[in-house]
Amino acid sequence: MKAEIIAVGTELLLGQIANTNAQFLSRKLAEIGVSVYFHSVVGDNAKRLDETIKLAASRSDLVIFSGGLGPTQDDLTKETVAAHLGRSLMTDELAMQRITAFFEQRGIVMTENNRKQALVIDGSTVFANDHGMAPGMGYTKDGVTYVLLPGPPSELYPMVDRYVMPFLMDLLPGKQVFHSRVLCFFGIGESALEERLLDLIESQSNPTIAPYAKEFEVTLRITARAQTVEEAERLIVPVEAEIRSRLGQYVYATGETSLHQVLVESLKDRQETIAFAESCTGGTLASLVTSIAGSSAVFPGSIVCYSNQAKHDLLDIPQEVLDAEGAVSEKTAKLLAENVRAKLHTTHGVSVTGVAGPDSAEGKPVGLVYIGVASEGYPTVVKQLQLSGRRQAIIGRTAKTALFHALQRLKER
Amino acid sequence: MKAEIIAVGTELLLGQIANTNAQFLSRKLAEIGVSVYFHSVVGDNAKRLDETIKLAASRSDLVIFSGGLGPTQDDLTKETVAAHLGRSLMTDELAMQRITAFFEQRGIVMTENNRKQALVIDGSTVFANDHGMAPGMGYTKDGVTYVLLPGPPSELYPMVDRYVMPFLMDLLPGKQVFHSRVLCFFGIGESALEERLLDLIESQSNPTIAPYAKEFEVTLRITARAQTVEEAERLIVPVEAEIRSRLGQYVYATGETSLHQVLVESLKDRQETIAFAESCTGGTLASLVTSIAGSSAVFPGSIVCYSNQAKHDLLDIPQEVLDAEGAVSEKTAKLLAENVRAKLHTTHGVSVTGVAGPDSAEGKPVGLVYIGVASEGYPTVVKQLQLSGRRQAIIGRTAKTALFHALQRLKER
Repeated sequence: MKAEIIAVGTELLLGQIANTNAQFLSRKLAEIGVSVYFHSVVGDNAKRLDETIKLAASRSDLVIFSGGLGPTQDDLTKETVAAHLGRSLMTDELAMQRITAFFEQRGIVMTENNRKQALVIDGSTVFANDHGMAPGMGYTKDGVTYVLLPGPPSELYPMVDRYVMPFLMDLLPGKQVFHSRVLCFFGIGESALEERLLDLIESQSNPTIAPYAKEFEVTLRITARAQTVEEAERLIVPVEAEIRSRLGQYVYATGETSLHQVLVESLKDRQETIAFAESCTGGTLASLVTSIAGSSAVFPGSIVCYSNQAKHDLLDIPQEVLDAEGAVSEKTAKLLAENVRAKLHTTHGVSVTGVAGPDSAEGKPVGLVYIGVASEGYPTVVKQLQLSGRRQAIIGRTAKTALFHALQRLKER
Repeated sequence: MKAEIIAVGTELLLGQIANTNAQFLSRKLAEIGVSVYFHSVVGDNAKRLDETIKLAASRSDLVIFSGGLGPTQDDLTKETVAAHLGRSLMTDELAMQRITAFFEQRGIVMTENNRKQALVIDGSTVFANDHGMAPGMGYTKDGVTYVLLPGPPSELYPMVDRYVMPFLMDLLPGKQVFHSRVLCFFGIGESALEERLLDLIESQSNPTIAPYAKEFEVTLRITARAQTVEEAERLIVPVEAEIRSRLGQYVYATGETSLHQVLVESLKDRQETIAFAESCTGGTLASLVTSIAGSSAVFPGSIVCYSNQAKHDLLDIPQEVLDAEGAVSEKTAKLLAENVRAKLHTTHGVSVTGVAGPDSAEGKPVGLVYIGVASEGYPTVVKQLQLSGRRQAIIGRTAKTALFHALQRLKER
């Protein structure tokens, strides 16, 4: 099946937003083995939209539209597609009820143009909009399936996951299920990972293996198609085992998660706590951990000790250590980790001190970083890193590395 | 002039990356008054790319390509465009020198396929790649200008700013200059701002007024075209004055900047310092400020006091205050700001305490936040906010609001 994605909206052509819907839809289609051959963006203009529809219908089996389903005059996707199909528009009662209820609940008078949002192509499969007003729809004619979706990602993403994917799966031959497992990696780059798995990635078509780079992390999605979830799972097992046998030391979790989320959950499971003494990461570790709901159970607080004075005043680093070895040193990292743990009465204390740049400090090079991990009943360990890149990359990579080492400590204990 | 943008790369069609180059190029073209009518994405496939080029040439005056200039077999943009134009490829000597030097400096043997990167369309204007290997190029035939650019944003953005914009400006009738001023707003949403300026936005064509939403901030770009920069400036002045007369209280800076950058720069100018006591923002304020190079001159450190125990132990909040008024209270915010200032010996102390959610705390609703600002020789002020949204939005908006209030204090003093 050959697919293409058409985003409709002048705001995209003005560069006010990026076409992230096309990215999302492409990933979803790749997961179920549908090849996407083109993306297009066209403005809120009936003539150019109609030309784009005609071209798409001539070369693709599946055409997915995003945007242009709203209440204003500018919104003309369904009108233009309906005209192309020779169908009329009719009111979808369920959508109309939801729109009316929306305005009633907020005590606002509904303007007449909002009725337009409940119109759908006559005879189409309607996808309810659980997070907004305009429903989506799917319609097949002459071997081409047209899917129309609302533009806001907060409406489109859940509609695709809940209603559109099952609709598309029904179009595929053999009524197969698609089942995925995600592995989370840290400490290996996307290209290095791909290189180590290239033979698998290239030879495998079921399951498929697709790496994605996240911020200083990499995830790998293994997707199998089969008659049942159980059968798909059986196809995934040996591939996952082979990947783990090659790169197991970099795998820190299974599923869509992140280092900070796994750290918070692991600490919760063990009823342990953690505190940070952050110099060069300047609060990044604390803000990552507190971005997770429920982190208060494992994280009482931390100290950002940017200046030497703060390291001395707030974390008792002796002036002699700062003078003799410097703030960026193994000794300082060790004491920071141990002292922050003592001051905040936690199971673990993690410290970071380093040179984020752009200038070197204490005669030490940009990218030199020490990470200390102190834990109850365990000798304190200090790791030395030499990172490259710009300030923000050094800060981000250091923070993730510190979370990874904290997680390793949890596994060792 | 009608333009379209063609991105070439299978990684876009697989959803591995978003087409941010098209967004960047669209904004740049909008600023110089060039209308973009289409974006397309096509994979690394010569036949489909050729079809896309032919369609673009039939309907646009300017076709900008990104991607497909690299060393591998998959990279075929310039080969395909050259064939469409009936031109051959030739080696650009400057590019070849740079590529050779790149490998020599790193002591790596250059593989033969890297020579391909120095090839350009015979007779084209060559744009040097100051941040990578493959140069860009521009070529005009039969009234259509083709611009080919490398795919990585780190190479494309600076090439566009330095070489492509002047090249495009030369194509425009009347040799006009485009000159912009950016105003930075905080405390007003994009749609509210647009509503308050709608008459100006809709009636103005020179200068144009374009709002862009950033994270919890809005910027407004005023762009004028004229024969000279001075003349453009004269067109901008009355429009800026009108905007400021309506919304001046929300304007915190001029130029491409951010609240945390302006705060760091303002503190530096005044030789003042700041510290934070963060509860619900959990280190976000500190990490924003330390993301700015040179922040160590104004920021010695801060304390993340997530638990009540930490508020008591590290920042001397009396147990009676925590028991009677709670951690999320005006009194606690006031003491946190004053005490963190005292502990870190800074000119200013800023505190945040609130309920980020998803659950309420101390019987207080999600989104209730207190921000304290304590300064040398100035009465401490506490602001109360009631925010809506999810956890991350509440944290982000609270942090930006605290930075805004700190900045206001600097202006008052």
